Amino acid sequence: MKDVEIITIGDEVLMGQIVDMNASWLGERLTVEGVSVRWMTTVGDDRKQINEALNTAKSRAGAVIITGGLGPTPDDVTKSCLVEFFGDKLVLKEEMLEKVKKRFRDHGLELPETSRNQAEFPHKAKEIPNNYGTATGIHYSQDEVEWFSLPGVPQEMRNMVDEYVINRLREVGLCDRIAVKIIRTTGIGESFLLEKMKMLPDARKLVEIAFLPKLGIGVDVKLTARGDEASNNRSKLKKATEMLLPDMKPHVFGINLETLEEAVGRIAQEKSVRIAVAESCTGGLIAKIFTDVPGSSAYFDRGVVTYSNEAKIDLLGVPADLIEEEGAVSSPVAKAMARGMLKRSRADVAASVTGIAGPTGGTPEKPVGTVFIGIAAEDQCEVHRFVFGGNREMNRKRTAMTVMQLLHDRIKNLDSKE
Amino acid sequence: MKDVEIITIGDEVLMGQIVDMNASWLGERLTVEGVSVRWMTTVGDDRKQINEALNTAKSRAGAVIITGGLGPTPDDVTKSCLVEFFGDKLVLKEEMLEKVKKRFRDHGLELPETSRNQAEFPHKAKEIPNNYGTATGIHYSQDEVEWFSLPGVPQEMRNMVDEYVINRLREVGLCDRIAVKIIRTTGIGESFLLEKMKMLPDARKLVEIAFLPKLGIGVDVKLTARGDEASNNRSKLKKATEMLLPDMKPHVFGINLETLEEAVGRIAQEKSVRIAVAESCTGGLIAKIFTDVPGSSAYFDRGVVTYSNEAKIDLLGVPADLIEEEGAVSSPVAKAMARGMLKRSRADVAASVTGIAGPTGGTPEKPVGTVFIGIAAEDQCEVHRFVFGGNREMNRKRTAMTVMQLLHDRIKNLDSKE
Repeated sequence: MKDVEIITIGDEVLMGQIVDMNASWLGERLTVEGVSVRWMTTVGDDRKQINEALNTAKSRAGAVIITGGLGPTPDDVTKSCLVEFFGDKLVLKEEMLEKVKKRFRDHGLELPETSRNQAEFPHKAKEIPNNYGTATGIHYSQDEVEWFSLPGVPQEMRNMVDEYVINRLREVGLCDRIAVKIIRTTGIGESFLLEKMKMLPDARKLVEIAFLPKLGIGVDVKLTARGDEASNNRSKLKKATEMLLPDMKPHVFGINLETLEEAVGRIAQEKSVRIAVAESCTGGLIAKIFTDVPGSSAYFDRGVVTYSNEAKIDLLGVPADLIEEEGAVSSPVAKAMARGMLKRSRADVAASVTGIAGPTGGTPEKPVGTVFIGIAAEDQCEVHRFVFGGNREMNRKRTAMTVMQLLHDRIKNLDSKE
Repeated sequence: MKDVEIITIGDEVLMGQIVDMNASWLGERLTVEGVSVRWMTTVGDDRKQINEALNTAKSRAGAVIITGGLGPTPDDVTKSCLVEFFGDKLVLKEEMLEKVKKRFRDHGLELPETSRNQAEFPHKAKEIPNNYGTATGIHYSQDEVEWFSLPGVPQEMRNMVDEYVINRLREVGLCDRIAVKIIRTTGIGESFLLEKMKMLPDARKLVEIAFLPKLGIGVDVKLTARGDEASNNRSKLKKATEMLLPDMKPHVFGINLETLEEAVGRIAQEKSVRIAVAESCTGGLIAKIFTDVPGSSAYFDRGVVTYSNEAKIDLLGVPADLIEEEGAVSSPVAKAMARGMLKRSRADVAASVTGIAGPTGGTPEKPVGTVFIGIAAEDQCEVHRFVFGGNREMNRKRTAMTVMQLLHDRIKNLDSKE
């Protein structure tokens, strides 16, 4: 039993009130360490269901990571379920009580009666320190299965995984059991990429290969080598990559977790090019994606969100009569926005976006999902028209990622500014 | 067996390469219909694991909704697993083959050999029409359990749920079995809220009550009434709400799915107030959150992302020597940004943000996570200092949501501009 199960506890996940980002973060984090995650299970804050999930996990997994249900309120039942499952009991830990009290005192508050249970801990379990909150993590090691119960608060959970869980998984030999490489492509469809990869059947003899289309970005090709020997996995992965990469090269923008926005940032820095964006329908999303990347201030100069016509006029110098004649969502306005942004910033390349994200505002000529993207650099400005035709959220995302694609191609072909 | 299980199939979810938005969408969509979702399970593209998950679901659920693994590539095995599980066989359907061929022809392409299997369908199953793609959904109805196998492509899956799955769940009596209300609060911690809710024990006799802290926003209190009688559920929910709401009132910003940004938008529209934001460390996130809301152009005037000092000077008129003397991350600069934004826009209230999102850039006096938020309206400008001290992503999110809180409070107290 060498595979890992992740159990999420929380009604709010089942009801779609929150998206289970914890499970996905754990999947990615553990995969990087070569841990094989085989199952993810979500159940509600319900003793019977939790017990059922623990029993199922026990029958198949080498380690179980549980998130959620460790808080102070009555619907947080994970701790008491674990105690019952392991035939254990809760004891009040004085030093935990002190820590919880102090945390409240630091905020100028007294410990509420309801939060005293945060200082109760299972007798036979080991403590997983929490550097960011009051709930201590719980570690049981029994019958060759490792059990980790962590809070659902992302910051607290992530820190415990980095500082404690990974080390323990390494000790018991659950790391380095798979090796993964992701080759990320843009600007080519799945079936056409498939046809270009002549060595695919040979590579498949060494590693598992999966194709994962990413909306508005391109196709990720994921290679997975499995086996108990870490060095063997790595060498199979290396061989398979050497077989496949030459045919894919023209379409590859990054390897592994490098995102398209990181790739754009990387080539912008290589060329000392600074970027500015003027957004209408994406409303700040593009600037947000750029500045998600630490260190982006080196190449991201500024952005403006010109949601109203007045803002397009004031901030970008788009002529009022151009908007009047052509409409705010039009090729000439996209061009004026990109040129205006380039002129009024300290950037070397500027992108502009104007479109109809929906759900309303479409016309027969310009249906919902119509977007104009301008890219201005040096003395040139190109404008591209797209009709994405999805819902508001999808249209905004696809537009943002298409801007990244276009900027990637444009900056690649610019002279270095140094 | 009246509860529903959702099964997601896909290695990419287990590896954290994609976030399982399908499960969360399904959870929310089904909850709205009063369907009780009890379990979510994720397994890889692996026959043994899929079979195991189907068997587990059979033993406990009244309906099972499966997403993913219906595509044309060899790693898509859901269809053949189902056929095996039900002792069924695949047959080629001529009309499906025609449909698939036509879809390729419409894009000027010939049907690739690999995609012919899209026209094979289980003999004993019913077809769930796909209006947006080539994979037909599969519906088995056996031993009083309903099975729906849907593609993983969100648009295709969602359409099948809306047009087919919900109707069938209604026919077999799985809808209207729960009623849910969410009371959303801001500006008070979980334990203190708990202490204020004097009628909690009485309300608990009628409905299940869960507390859900939302990072940087507040605490959601979720009431769930369960039972086979829809009208009975609604009346229990109404009674419990009447018991709890008076004590919670000062902290409530919305009911059910209304978000904090929607609440800000709602009161801004009520008062005819327009909003502008000047962002440094949040880099467009606040503008993005505002413009996530359809119709936000009615109150969101504009945003600027002044990531560089030059941008703060050019776009907001922040004096260069102020930045020099006080530092870009400082109370006076936050104030100058907010005032500058108010003056240079057509807005009635402006928010500004300057801070250190991390991971680098911190100092002993201003550690990573230090943020100054300015709120300017009429002739006043308040500045708030926070030290969030999380990672980059969390600091940006908490900052954005804190701005929403502050705007909510400020706009509530403004006079109507009409």
